[in-house]
Amino acid sequence: MDDATRTNAIHRLKSVAGHVNGIVRMLEEDRYCVDVIKQIQAVQTALGRVSETILDSHLRTCVTTAIRDDDPDDRERVLGEIMEVFRHSDKS
Amino acid sequence: MDDATRTNAIHRLKSVAGHVNGIVRMLEEDRYCVDVIKQIQAVQTALGRVSETILDSHLRTCVTTAIRDDDPDDRERVLGEIMEVFRHSDKS
Amino acid sequence: MDDATRTNAIHRLKSVAGHVNGIVRMLEEDRYCVDVIKQIQAVQTALGRVSETILDSHLRTCVTTAIRDDDPDDRERVLGEIMEVFRHSDKS
Amino acid sequence: MDDATRTNAIHRLKSVAGHVNGIVRMLEEDRYCVDVIKQIQAVQTALGRVSETILDSHLRTCVTTAIRDDDPDDRERVLGEIMEVFRHSDKS
Repeated sequence: MDDATRTNAIHRLKSVAGHVNGIVRMLEEDRYCVDVIKQIQAVQTALGRVSETILDSHLRTCVTTAIRDDDPDDRERVLGEIMEVFRHSDKS
Repeated sequence: MDDATRTNAIHRLKSVAGHVNGIVRMLEEDRYCVDVIKQIQAVQTALGRVSETILDSHLRTCVTTAIRDDDPDDRERVLGEIMEVFRHSDKS
Repeated sequence: MDDATRTNAIHRLKSVAGHVNGIVRMLEEDRYCVDVIKQIQAVQTALGRVSETILDSHLRTCVTTAIRDDDPDDRERVLGEIMEVFRHSDKS
Repeated sequence: MDDATRTNAIHRLKSVAGHVNGIVRMLEEDRYCVDVIKQIQAVQTALGRVSETILDSHLRTCVTTAIRDDDPDDRERVLGEIMEVFRHSDKS
């Protein structure tokens, strides 16, 4: 992954960790269940965005290099990995 | 996409269409809501599987060709398309 | 589920079946993989909407009746069913 | 939500925050993109489990109380909230 993507992902994940700690406090203060669930869903969405930016960078760097390369095993490996990531995200 | 994948996808989608018509009959017979919802979710899962097989074949054919090719616009296009497909499937 | 919801769901599912048959034709005409995948994803979205309307009606009819009723087993059953439906839809 | 569920959710969310900080370290150490994405997906799954336990408890407490109550606005509100939660989790 390129540096800008990594820096950006670190920044976003630190903010996600803060968000999760905020939800812990909501629970400690006995806040309304549905408000807690909505915050958890917001964190899931934020994490999805981070995955996307990393995957996008991954396709443009490692995957492109592996596919342009002449090692069929390597090519097979990166394509298999993309399918695994996709399968996890597509579950309905 | 390769021929085997296409033939397989056609076969599965015809079966999905039959499954959907079966759900229409369940509704006409006033079957229990939850049973209907579960069948709809099963169809969504089956469709996800078809998408996966097509994407897998797409990566090994069109995407590999475009990336190994020397047209940067073409490469950009196929990578952007994969991200669109991924974004749609990853929504939480 | 109420009659309006059932009629509406039947209508939408017939249209979904037509959409799926249209995707079969796209495959038979060897259309571009990504266009096929996008149509499959559109069908998944449409099915999600049908599930939602049925679940909404289910909550207002069967679930409300069972919870206001005095049979604890029945109450337990309907709540367990909602959780099952939710678990299937929430997979990331 | 009941106390056991809240205690359990706090515990799990603290562990999620730790997991997210671990992913930040993976990025700082420049670990392989796909390994990072898989860890993010694991966190999303863990969060989904927390939402489920809170929703389950919510149905058995607040929702059951509101539905057995005689205030139609309150009943309408809790059912609407469940649909919102469901809609967010069901996005394909």
